[in-house]
This record gives sequence, structure tokens and C-alpha cells, in this order.
Amino acid sequence: MLNKEIRPIQWSDNSLYLLDQTLLPHSETMIQLKTWPETVDAIKDMRVRGAPALGVTAGYAMALAAMELNQCKEGFQQFISKLTEISAKIHAARPTAVNIRWAITRQLQVANKCKDELEASNELLKEAQKMEREDVEINRCIGEHGRNLISYGNILTHCNTGALATAGYGTALGVVRASWENGNKIHVFHTETRPFLQGARLTAWELARLGIPSTMIVDGAAGLFMNEKTIQHVIVGADRIAANGDTANKIGTYSLAVLANENSIPFYVAAPISTIDLTIATGGGIPIEERPADEVTHLGEIRTAAPDTKVRNPSFDITPARYITAFITENGVIRQPFETTIPATI
Amino acid sequence: MLNKEIRPIQWSDNSLYLLDQTLLPHSETMIQLKTWPETVDAIKDMRVRGAPALGVTAGYAMALAAMELNQCKEGFQQFISKLTEISAKIHAARPTAVNIRWAITRQLQVANKCKDELEASNELLKEAQKMEREDVEINRCIGEHGRNLISYGNILTHCNTGALATAGYGTALGVVRASWENGNKIHVFHTETRPFLQGARLTAWELARLGIPSTMIVDGAAGLFMNEKTIQHVIVGADRIAANGDTANKIGTYSLAVLANENSIPFYVAAPISTIDLTIATGGGIPIEERPADEVTHLGEIRTAAPDTKVRNPSFDITPARYITAFITENGVIRQPFETTIPATI
Repeated sequence: MLNKEIRPIQWSDNSLYLLDQTLLPHSETMIQLKTWPETVDAIKDMRVRGAPALGVTAGYAMALAAMELNQCKEGFQQFISKLTEISAKIHAARPTAVNIRWAITRQLQVANKCKDELEASNELLKEAQKMEREDVEINRCIGEHGRNLISYGNILTHCNTGALATAGYGTALGVVRASWENGNKIHVFHTETRPFLQGARLTAWELARLGIPSTMIVDGAAGLFMNEKTIQHVIVGADRIAANGDTANKIGTYSLAVLANENSIPFYVAAPISTIDLTIATGGGIPIEERPADEVTHLGEIRTAAPDTKVRNPSFDITPARYITAFITENGVIRQPFETTIPATI
Repeated sequence: MLNKEIRPIQWSDNSLYLLDQTLLPHSETMIQLKTWPETVDAIKDMRVRGAPALGVTAGYAMALAAMELNQCKEGFQQFISKLTEISAKIHAARPTAVNIRWAITRQLQVANKCKDELEASNELLKEAQKMEREDVEINRCIGEHGRNLISYGNILTHCNTGALATAGYGTALGVVRASWENGNKIHVFHTETRPFLQGARLTAWELARLGIPSTMIVDGAAGLFMNEKTIQHVIVGADRIAANGDTANKIGTYSLAVLANENSIPFYVAAPISTIDLTIATGGGIPIEERPADEVTHLGEIRTAAPDTKVRNPSFDITPARYITAFITENGVIRQPFETTIPATI
């Protein structure tokens, strides 16, 4: 069991260590981050990605910032003021996933309860480590709640929502794992997930490590496999869920949801409660990050597209709540009507 | 005007010359094919692709076969028998596009009307050249019939259906070109079209050459741009159209059709009449080619996917007729109900 556990976010020697996901599957390299700006860069460069993993990483970035500010000895008021400024920069690293905001808000609350910089610096590290432990526990809980919903047949998933997208175990892929570990005979179909190939590079790697049988398809092939009844369930993660259930997730999710609906296939979203953003009424209020064109025009250093090709590269889309069969959270399965069931579950 | 005309299939010096589409956009190289087996290999390797281009190429492959058999001097009966055998091998090179079958059937009919091998060998070359000329004329005709249907706004297309997919001008992209040349203010959104990247490599290159403004997106982003009302029309080509209007086209087309329908966006299929296969009642009867896994797991020589990733790589999918607003053919626009309008138009 132990060797298959992936821990992409680790704290050691006053440094944050991240499994560099841009190098997977070719190389399993932990990068050492000693400062919060290095951590922000790692987030922007997608060395760490996945909403829950971004939350935990942001928690550690806040701890690194607190340690640095603690060295300045400028007084606690100045400490809080500068920590708040830094938190805005961490927040801006990737705008769509709500988990970064959730983590920095939680860390600012911890800091505000402290009496001085030293205490705050210690407490923020403890809190980040707690977030990390909690995330794994939450994911196992999501897995237990969801495993019976996807207990047979072929399960389609998108992007990477496994241990790599979290502090460990995974959300949607955690439910798949829980179903598999429960002895269910399942098979995973996963998209390659253009443009960043999280499916090809990360999900395929995780599923192989877990021994779960799987098949990769290009994103555009999902419709065919749903229409010919190869797929029995679709399960994805989420980067932000509005109060009404509208869900931001990796680009292509909306298409999968419409196709699942059209083919009468249940469509599940697995995510921790921290992904739900009650301050936003509907999906229209969720900011959609647009990433650089070269993610689409190049593969690594190699240009694949014709010269001067103009690109739009939104990294996420919004799936209207009406296409979602249920949310699977650590507090249980949330079904329609989400306007009432979501607030009741939090 | 002249320098923007692309002629990907040319006959010269007793050889077939093809613009090698696997090398585009980085290199514009014409490859010389002196025999029919070389031509079959070029089809299998997708150095030439696109249903109408495959038809014209198959016509020339038959001409090359006839020339070769004419050297054998084994009598006309034996000539016809061997030419028929070879035609089956050409047909098998790529199974989904009906245009190959259409071309070899037409060439066998021409051969059967001849009195000897020499005449047949001459006539098959003339017929292939006629197919090539006709294809460009047909495409211009499709463009004229369709240009007013996509006269404004953002037009989404998939794969490559331009001059490169034909003997010249293009089908769906030909309609776009006709609309643009008619002075309409339009903008093209096109998918990159995984796995073979026909959109990124070929469509982007053709649109730039024609000076038509365009934006590339990953296949999975099409839904978002339809849902947010950025796209006003969708137009694609076809590899085979069943008698009831069900249409085989590049993998991902079905998804685009469902998404267009869900968002009340007209969905057009532009194709020559030769793409319609009345011998097949519905899409269920159309064979779907499955291509090698390494198209998905690799980019050129570079492996992108995790080791041992299993893949399904169907190259086409079937769009049920109910999602199709109209077919645009050289004989005019065909609207629902296709069961009666398709046979009436042929």
C-alpha cells in the first residue's frame, strides 16, 4: 500500500517541497521552495495544480511569508498589513480555483488571533500542516461517500483529480480509487486533457501506479464513447462551485456534462466543501483564467501550430448546475435542488 | 489571387505529386509517387487526408495501377481482374471516407468500357485528372450555395476542410472562403483537432494564407465559446453521409453538433454529393477507422503520455442527422427531413 501513496506537497527543513508536475511522467522531481514568491511562481507555472493542492500550497506560501516577515521585526501591525498584501499576490497567482482564497483567508484569521509575529509565524506553519493532513482525510471521506455511485462499468473522468491534485488520495479520482479498493470491477476512461495534458501525463501515471485499468482518449472522443454506451458514469473535480451549483472546472468539463446529459449518463462532481463559494450566486460570477497561447501552439519547446496562429486559451469553463447529477463532498452526496441542498450541507 | 491557391494533388511526368501534409506547416514539400503501393502508403500515413482529397488520390492510384498492369501484357481480362484486386487494397487504406470507394468504382467502370489495357491505362489517367478538376469546381459550387448561410459573426470549424482536404478550394472551409471573398465580415474559430492537429497545422496555415482572421482553441473549449454566445455558426466537412443524413466526420464532430444543438446554433455539413452513401441506411453502418495509439501518446518522436498508457483512438465519430441543420452540396442546400430531401437532391 505505502509505495503507491503520492504526497505531492511536503514540508521539511523550513522549506516547502513540491513534486514538479510539469516534469511528470518522465521525472519524479521534488523542488524545494524557500520563499513565498518562489511558491507563487511554482503555482503560476503549474508545477503544482489542482484546486485542493493549490489551497494547501497557498497555506504553506502564507506560512513562508509569515516566517520572512517575522525576520523584519517591524511590529505586529505592520506584520499583519504586509501579510495581507502578500496574500493578495498569492491569490492572484491563479484566479479561478477558490481554494487559494479559502486558504489565505483561513491563514489571515489564524494570524489575527496571535499576539505577535513569532507566534503567528509558528501558528501559520502549524495551520498549513493541518490543512495538508485534513485534505487527505477529506478526500478519503469523499471517496467513501461516492464509491457506491460508480461501482461498475466504465467511468469517464477529465483532467487530473488524483493525489497529485490534492495533498493526497484525490477527489474525483479518489472516488474512483475508493470504488476500486472496495473490490468493484471498474475501468477508467480518461481524456488526455488538452492543452496541458494532465490526463496523459498525470492521470495515466497515477492510475498505473494504483493498478486501476484505464484507457486514454482525446478530449473530442468522449462524445462517441458516451453515445455508443461505452461509458456508464462521468466524474470530475471542481475549481469553484457557485451557490446555485454552477461549477467551474478544467476546460472541456462543460462539453462532457452536456454530452452526458444528452446520453442519460450520470454526471458527478467530487470536491471538498471548501470549493463551494457561497459569495457567488451563479457561474457567471466566477472568474475564468486565460492562460498563455504557447500552451496550445507548442508542446514543450516544439511549435506544433502554424506560425502566427492566434489563440484563445481559457483554462476553465462553467458547467450549469442543471447538468450535474450530484456533488460528492466530505459531508455527503448533495443532490438537486442545489439552491437548498448546498447551503444545508455546508 | 494565384499565389494563395493551394493544389495539394498534382500529376506530372507520369507521377503523382502530393503536398506532404505531415510536414506542414514547417515545410511545404511535394512528394513524388510513381506506383500505386507508394500511394496507398501515403494515404495510410496521412500524407494526404480529407475525404475529397482521398477520392482524387485514389483515382490517381488506380491510374498508376493501370499503367503498371499495362506493362505486364497479360491480356485485358487479367488486367481487369488484377485492377479489381488492387482497388480493394486501395479501398482498405482508409475505411471511413466513402470517397475512396466512389473513386475506385468510377475508375473500374471506366476500365470496363475500354477495349484493351493501353486504352484503359490512358482513360484512367484522364479520368483521375477529370476528378481533380471536377473536385475544385464542385467545391466552388458548394461555397456559392453556402456562403450566405455563414455571412456574419464567428464561425466555428473543426479539423481541416480546406484546399488541403480536397483537390483545391475546400468544402466547409471553402464555404468560409466564399463568404469572406463575398465581403462578409467573419472571423473563424477553429479547433486544434487532436490527435493529428489538422486544425493547428493545416487550417491555421490555410486561413493565414487566405488572410481570413482566425482564432484557434483546444477541442474541449468549443463548448464554452458556444455557451457564452461567441459562436454564431458551426460548419464542418464529412467523410461519409448515410442515406438518412447521419454523418461520419473527424472525431469530435458529434460533440460539436450536440453542443451547437444545446445552444441553438446552426450546425452545417459541407460536402460533395459523392460523400453521400445511399447504400448505408444509417450511421450505425459506417465503419469507423481506429488509428494507432502513438498518434495520441506521442507528438512526433516525443512521448507525452505516461509509460504503458492504453489508448482508444477512433479517427471519426457519427453525428446523428437530427443535430444537422443542413447539408451544403454542389447541388444546393439540403434541409430536413433528410430521408426525403437527400435522395431528391442527388
